[in-house]
Amino acid sequence: MSLPDVASAHREELQDFERAILASQTQIESWFRAQWRHHHAPFYGSVDIRNSGYKLASIDMNLFPGGFNNLNPVFLPLASVAAQDAVERACADAQSVLLIPENHTRNTFYLQNVYALCSILRHVGLDVRIGTLNPEITEITTLETALGDHITLEPVQRQGNLLQLADGFTPCMILLNNDLSGGVPEILQGLEQTLLPPLKAGWTTRRKSTHFQAYNQVASEFAQLVGIDEWTINPYFEVCSGLDFTSHEGENRLAETVERLLQRIQHKYDELGIQDKPFVIVKADAGTYGMGVMSVHSAEEVRGLNRKKRNKMAKIKEGLEVSEVIVQEGIYTYETLNGATAEPVVYMMDRFVIGGFYRVHQDRGPDENLNAVGMHFVPLQCNIASLDTQSAEEAASKREFKPWEQLGIPQTENVTQARDCESIRLYVYGVLARLSLLAAAIELENMSEPAV
Amino acid sequence: MSLPDVASAHREELQDFERAILASQTQIESWFRAQWRHHHAPFYGSVDIRNSGYKLASIDMNLFPGGFNNLNPVFLPLASVAAQDAVERACADAQSVLLIPENHTRNTFYLQNVYALCSILRHVGLDVRIGTLNPEITEITTLETALGDHITLEPVQRQGNLLQLADGFTPCMILLNNDLSGGVPEILQGLEQTLLPPLKAGWTTRRKSTHFQAYNQVASEFAQLVGIDEWTINPYFEVCSGLDFTSHEGENRLAETVERLLQRIQHKYDELGIQDKPFVIVKADAGTYGMGVMSVHSAEEVRGLNRKKRNKMAKIKEGLEVSEVIVQEGIYTYETLNGATAEPVVYMMDRFVIGGFYRVHQDRGPDENLNAVGMHFVPLQCNIASLDTQSAEEAASKREFKPWEQLGIPQTENVTQARDCESIRLYVYGVLARLSLLAAAIELENMSEPAV
Repeated sequence: MSLPDVASAHREELQDFERAILASQTQIESWFRAQWRHHHAPFYGSVDIRNSGYKLASIDMNLFPGGFNNLNPVFLPLASVAAQDAVERACADAQSVLLIPENHTRNTFYLQNVYALCSILRHVGLDVRIGTLNPEITEITTLETALGDHITLEPVQRQGNLLQLADGFTPCMILLNNDLSGGVPEILQGLEQTLLPPLKAGWTTRRKSTHFQAYNQVASEFAQLVGIDEWTINPYFEVCSGLDFTSHEGENRLAETVERLLQRIQHKYDELGIQDKPFVIVKADAGTYGMGVMSVHSAEEVRGLNRKKRNKMAKIKEGLEVSEVIVQEGIYTYETLNGATAEPVVYMMDRFVIGGFYRVHQDRGPDENLNAVGMHFVPLQCNIASLDTQSAEEAASKREFKPWEQLGIPQTENVTQARDCESIRLYVYGVLARLSLLAAAIELENMSEPAV
Repeated sequence: MSLPDVASAHREELQDFERAILASQTQIESWFRAQWRHHHAPFYGSVDIRNSGYKLASIDMNLFPGGFNNLNPVFLPLASVAAQDAVERACADAQSVLLIPENHTRNTFYLQNVYALCSILRHVGLDVRIGTLNPEITEITTLETALGDHITLEPVQRQGNLLQLADGFTPCMILLNNDLSGGVPEILQGLEQTLLPPLKAGWTTRRKSTHFQAYNQVASEFAQLVGIDEWTINPYFEVCSGLDFTSHEGENRLAETVERLLQRIQHKYDELGIQDKPFVIVKADAGTYGMGVMSVHSAEEVRGLNRKKRNKMAKIKEGLEVSEVIVQEGIYTYETLNGATAEPVVYMMDRFVIGGFYRVHQDRGPDENLNAVGMHFVPLQCNIASLDTQSAEEAASKREFKPWEQLGIPQTENVTQARDCESIRLYVYGVLARLSLLAAAIELENMSEPAV
């Protein structure tokens, strides 16, 4: 894989940042090890990273990652080793796992993700079966994935406090790959079995703002450890609630919040001599799938939203209404692959980075949300799928996934002379991703299980 | 990598065996997880495996592996993740490690191994330095490895109960890559720091026979779990002590032991209809590096040893005298790569297989010890070293190392139809290797620290 280009104006800043991380590598890894003694890593997670050279941060942390199919399969044994720890902690004598995926059965790329996830767990030596909550699936159903593999979905049923399959399959561990955007189904409530991630990690109860509050704490400690300005890894944010996009309720408050944040960013830009124009991202505090997200450059934009934009913000996945948003400092993406904006996505299993890819989008600018085409994953060349398996709609989308070919291994020798290269940049992404993972661990600790 | 051929007469037996392992994969992995809850895996280990199709077993378990340079570098991140656990257990807040290698500084392939091992530990984010016990190295010395990398050796010194380097570097963990064949140096005795592997794992105190006693227990339990004849994974052995090869002392007893073992093997061969001629391997009970090993087909051979053979058996690494041997059932190697006998070597870090390679020897037969050229590692093509970096002596040797390109991932679907293939065969090797690792864990638990 060729590494994306970084805009020449910001290349040197990126190199300085990478050198700072490398110089503290030993302390960083030791600090992470210490943190994981006090905090339990989520079972898995993925983060979206923005890189402007002068600022690098994860801007989203997904606890139900859906792109395992986009990872380089060479890292599969690594993922299995990482999963082993998590499985052992959850259920010491686990022999089997019940995986509960999302309900969308027509997205063959999502099905490919389910297949990839099953493979990782099977390599741990677990008997993996897939239970579905989808009411449309009432009997054992085999579906074909984007690459022509097959997965078998089985309706789940409840027996007392246990979730089972029809033949009595009752594993002690249930793995959710369903983010519960539509609420926590009754059938999952009060189970004796270990659910990972826990129900509270679902979007029924989870809030992005709570995550970023936890991230504030992590970023502050990390910045001190490495001796960098915390701002370089931590975007400003504020929460704005009591909104109703359809009726314009709260619009003024939202505009004021946007204005306040833009001023704070401008102030910081001035301090550091950054020439960019500040922008913010307004997104549903409980949203996901890149839905309910907009990029805003002035308070006026929020006041003058047209009906289409308001509708887009008003409802997200599973038809949930949006009344609370997080207004987050936007970070320019100055990485491009063949001229197209590229955003790294890092996948983790337990405490470990197990792969990543670049999300490449030809039609979007450096200040836009790249996770915007909804569920139309467009695969890259033959390592994901061949073009002829795609629907016309999928083929029309310009989004690509470029899997990493390595995991980012820092050159520890001659740190002072280190120059930006694939292994260093990917390592730095991995560090940032793990900061978000740690924040998610703290975030979950601070939450009580939902009263459902 | 193309998988070695298995002699056609034994291909079907191998496939049956592989199918039996695959069919129990879930139980096997769950059983391993349970075992590792009760036994601490050694920090690292490598095993030599023999495969005759009707019998597969590890015939040697090395607790100070010296061939990390022969592994496929793509598995380096996996090795680092595996090492992480071991490091954390040894020393919760470890930031640095002192590595103590063997004293041979002129074997550039061994130096390459040291370099590879350092890389794995550096990727864990540890500050790794290399301390040497070599009395000839009295100041900081940088050496070039076979591939042109560099490692820096520093003399160790003792400060109270701590091992240090001259500038005061005092890590809480010391990693031995020195098998202590020449005894436990005083400077390593009674240290406060954690030594891994522990001193008792060195050949000063370790005995192959103790390892294989522990293996008996492991193999018996495993055979029951999988429903196979224990003999298919466990070679017979007996110990013979009080020998002096130079003066012929004990020669008769040794011959009787050989005779007894050959008869037991013949009996088993008859029972299973195996046409091969039984043989045994006589090896120093505390030996290593393939020294002090001979292949024997009859009791007469032991009685009629010529001076050269007796000398070869009498003294091993570091000039140690051999008075005790283990007489072990020989397993034919029916795997060949381009006509040359090939023997798999599996590397493990903590509980995990992290790579492997085939040791390929053109001049040896299927009943001979392939670890016989001593320390002249002959690298393969460009992935290890180019020919022009080799000395004439090294180039003359016919031994090659073929690194694995994958780690062995079983096809869990359609087990009954599974046919021998790379992923399955490597997985099966990995299972056998981990049985030996488990035996080593039990062996070490049963030993007290040497009274030195």
